[in-house]
Amino acid sequence: MKCRVCREPAVIDIRRHNANFCSDHFMRYCRDQATKTIKEFEMAHQGDRLLVAVSGGKDSLALWDILLELGWDVDGLYVGLGIGDYSDVSGDYVRSFFEAFAEPRGAKLIEVDLRATHGYDVPTASVATGRTPCSACGLSKRHLFDAAARDGAYDVLLTGHNLDDEAAVLYGNVMRWQVDYLARQRPMLAAGNGFPKKAKPLVRLSERETAAYCVLRGIDYQVDECPMAVGNRHLEYKNALGAAEEASPGMKQAFYFGYLREAVDLFATRPAPEGEAGEANTSLIPCDTCGSPTNGDPSGAATCAFCRLSQRSAAAEPVPVELLKTRRR
Amino acid sequence: MKCRVCREPAVIDIRRHNANFCSDHFMRYCRDQATKTIKEFEMAHQGDRLLVAVSGGKDSLALWDILLELGWDVDGLYVGLGIGDYSDVSGDYVRSFFEAFAEPRGAKLIEVDLRATHGYDVPTASVATGRTPCSACGLSKRHLFDAAARDGAYDVLLTGHNLDDEAAVLYGNVMRWQVDYLARQRPMLAAGNGFPKKAKPLVRLSERETAAYCVLRGIDYQVDECPMAVGNRHLEYKNALGAAEEASPGMKQAFYFGYLREAVDLFATRPAPEGEAGEANTSLIPCDTCGSPTNGDPSGAATCAFCRLSQRSAAAEPVPVELLKTRRR
Repeated sequence: MKCRVCREPAVIDIRRHNANFCSDHFMRYCRDQATKTIKEFEMAHQGDRLLVAVSGGKDSLALWDILLELGWDVDGLYVGLGIGDYSDVSGDYVRSFFEAFAEPRGAKLIEVDLRATHGYDVPTASVATGRTPCSACGLSKRHLFDAAARDGAYDVLLTGHNLDDEAAVLYGNVMRWQVDYLARQRPMLAAGNGFPKKAKPLVRLSERETAAYCVLRGIDYQVDECPMAVGNRHLEYKNALGAAEEASPGMKQAFYFGYLREAVDLFATRPAPEGEAGEANTSLIPCDTCGSPTNGDPSGAATCAFCRLSQRSAAAEPVPVELLKTRRR
Repeated sequence: MKCRVCREPAVIDIRRHNANFCSDHFMRYCRDQATKTIKEFEMAHQGDRLLVAVSGGKDSLALWDILLELGWDVDGLYVGLGIGDYSDVSGDYVRSFFEAFAEPRGAKLIEVDLRATHGYDVPTASVATGRTPCSACGLSKRHLFDAAARDGAYDVLLTGHNLDDEAAVLYGNVMRWQVDYLARQRPMLAAGNGFPKKAKPLVRLSERETAAYCVLRGIDYQVDECPMAVGNRHLEYKNALGAAEEASPGMKQAFYFGYLREAVDLFATRPAPEGEAGEANTSLIPCDTCGSPTNGDPSGAATCAFCRLSQRSAAAEPVPVELLKTRRR
């Protein structure tokens, strides 16, 4: 097995591209894929200030490193979600990466702790609001990411979603024909409705590739899945697609990019809902608590979904993550 | 396990409806599902003369029986495709059904043999044209079905496609985002472009249910899959959806009917292609051989795809099905 570029011994094979690479050319391949994606979807322009949301996992740390390597002006944002030991360990990985790879190249790390700033954590919010943990987490993260990008006047907020993530989300949205979600499933959402521009430059890399990138680059990362996500539908969809990819290498990429090429525009006929960048939505009003655009809550008050969750969760008795894991069975 | 309707012992459980039925009420359930589908999609109206294409398999024989039981004026159409023993046995099942179930109720059976009428069979057409067997078969069947419906002045041509079939075809079209096929994937296509109205009244029944219907009703049918279809993608997609249905009963029905409710209209923006009923397509011209509407062939002659396949196949040396099975490996 030889590197496609230099014919030296290869360390990885990418079946869907029918290609093998040595370590150096594999890392260059990853950066090239990110560059191609950034250009194609106009994710960022020269001189932009970027903010990448980092979780301590392989995808987001690989993304931060790749963007720094490519010469972008890119800071990191870490949100402590209070998911027990998992969050503690995740934060340690982020800080180690920052010290070794980012700070030396002049980047900053912004840290926000959910309990310190808003008085609650994800397990507590899940119980207090009756949302699934993933739903409470997603709503909280989106709000804090948006606020940090706005407060720091960043031009683009970036996340490390990879091809497997995006294909699995698409698969779930298609299986249930969730047309509102389908309409918004793009690797770049323009700024709008008071929200920052959002982009996912790693949608051309599989999770096997982001993991290999970290290993070859010497980046340590949180390997465990979030304990609250175990058994969720997203992982089911990933498994279904994984089996299909195994049988037909390239089907995942064909499925996701085929959607972007052939179908997403057919779905994208509605204005963005509350709490989302993209198409202008003139029916939104400012949240009376945080000022973010909102549809208002069902009772008629102009309080956004995040502030409603935040208020109920901060008033609730803290729930340790271990208790929630038991309750979910 | 008791029948949902009469509380007598049940013989079948339908997990996606969380229901069990005795033999009589299960057969009534099947007929009710067909009636509901016929009404919802306006597949047929009182006084219509129907023609059901029967293959000798469970779905089409169940459909013919159900339509007769429901009091429709419905004849059968059997096309001999020349797929070796498989076709011989299929024809025998159709004729046995006809004698026992259809003729006594006043229905007619139309038989068309591909080699006798057009001088070729499916294995030969596949080799002569380089099409997959399923493609050569589909093109031939559509043409003969349409011609028989036209010649007999039937109002609707019906086929026995079940929920598993339609969901698997949808799945394949979605995985590859084949938007032309997606646009036309409806259980009813209106007459148009010189083609008859087409309908699939069994899309609310799974293949397990059409099989159970036949068994309980005493209908013998061809159990084997077509030997030329073994290993094709359609069966792969069926397996993938089968696993998902096992994990979440009802997902298949939600996927297919969700598509019809939420998405098919978004795709249906193009005129029908050659050889298909549906939206008017004013760019079609009559085939110089058979008169069917066509786009013309790439050389500029006005010969439809069926007549091109038919001419090449009739001129070719006959290929025994066994040889083709070997060639496909």
